[in-house]
Formats: sequence, structure tokens, C-alpha cells
Amino acid sequence: MEVANRVFGGKWKPGILFRLVERSYRFGELKRDMPWISERVLIRQLKELVEDGIVHREDHRQVPPRVVYSITEHGRTLAPLLKSMADWGDLHFEATTRCTS
Amino acid sequence: MEVANRVFGGKWKPGILFRLVERSYRFGELKRDMPWISERVLIRQLKELVEDGIVHREDHRQVPPRVVYSITEHGRTLAPLLKSMADWGDLHFEATTRCTS
Repeated sequence: MEVANRVFGGKWKPGILFRLVERSYRFGELKRDMPWISERVLIRQLKELVEDGIVHREDHRQVPPRVVYSITEHGRTLAPLLKSMADWGDLHFEATTRCTS
Repeated sequence: MEVANRVFGGKWKPGILFRLVERSYRFGELKRDMPWISERVLIRQLKELVEDGIVHREDHRQVPPRVVYSITEHGRTLAPLLKSMADWGDLHFEATTRCTS
């Protein structure tokens, strides 16, 4: 578990990966889509995901800078797990909203 | 995904939950079993898990203090997901060790 924890534990990695399995994103798009994450944390979590071979980073070396993040083939093996997490979240949301309403 | 992320995203929650679905733990046992987590972070992550109804905290009001953490029925619905995470981690470990050896 500690390996999985290290690779995609971390507050926002599941949310980042959930988006990247759908399509590639420029950094700015991710930042706008997840405004609750600070730029510093988003940069660090993306860097870790690239180092772990889960995400691919492509710098298009142009002005203005254009850096595109995409899921790697290996990263795509996380898709079923991410889906189960999202499904569990929906069930949990219903369960806890029932308790508190 | 954001709900799941909030409930069990967070660096060490999967590792904590992976243990609690197996059995109940006193705080000290968790601390010894996961020495890489600071006491402050462990206390906060457990507190969040209790607030979210995933973990139950029982204070036995005795000296020395004895506080036992256990998974709630609702928390137990995470067990299959935690198992898939651990399995994925094993596969990932093999894949990345092959690349780097």
C-alpha cells in the first residue's frame, strides 16, 4: 500500500489523474479547473507524477510557454481505480448527506 | 472525485485505513507502525477520518490514556478500493523496478 500511497496518495493527485485519463491538459487549464490547489502544490504534484512515470510532460518551447501534461500508458492502468474512487465518492456523498439532512 | 479525494485523499489516509480495515489500533500502535508520519499529521488525519464517519474513536478514559481507533461500517465500504490500490501498487513497484534495474 505504501507504494500506491506514495505514487498517487497526496491531496490532489487523484483529482489531477481523473482529468488526465480523460484528455491532455495544459498547465493553465489544470490550474483553472482546480482553483483550490495552489500553483506551487500543483507544480510539485505534477512533477512527482512525471518522476513516477504516471504523467508525461511536453514543453512546446514557444512563446508564450506551452506545456502539456498527458497520462502515460502506465498511468492509464490507474483508470479503473480512479473510477472506483469516484463511484465510492458519489455513494459516500449520498450517505453523508442523508445523515446530515 | 473531489468527495473521495477529500475523504481519503491525503498523503497517509489510505495507509491508515488499510490497517484499520484489518483490525482496531491504539494511537501508539499506529504511530509505531507508520513511523514516517509525524504525530501532528497522524492526529489530524485521524480527526478528519472520524469527522467524515469513516473511523470510530473510543477514549477508554483511563490512566495511562487509552484511545482505540476502529473502522466504521461505512468506512468498511472502502475495503475493496483499498485492496485495488494495494494491488496496483504491487504491479507498479514491479513495473518501475524493472525499468530502473
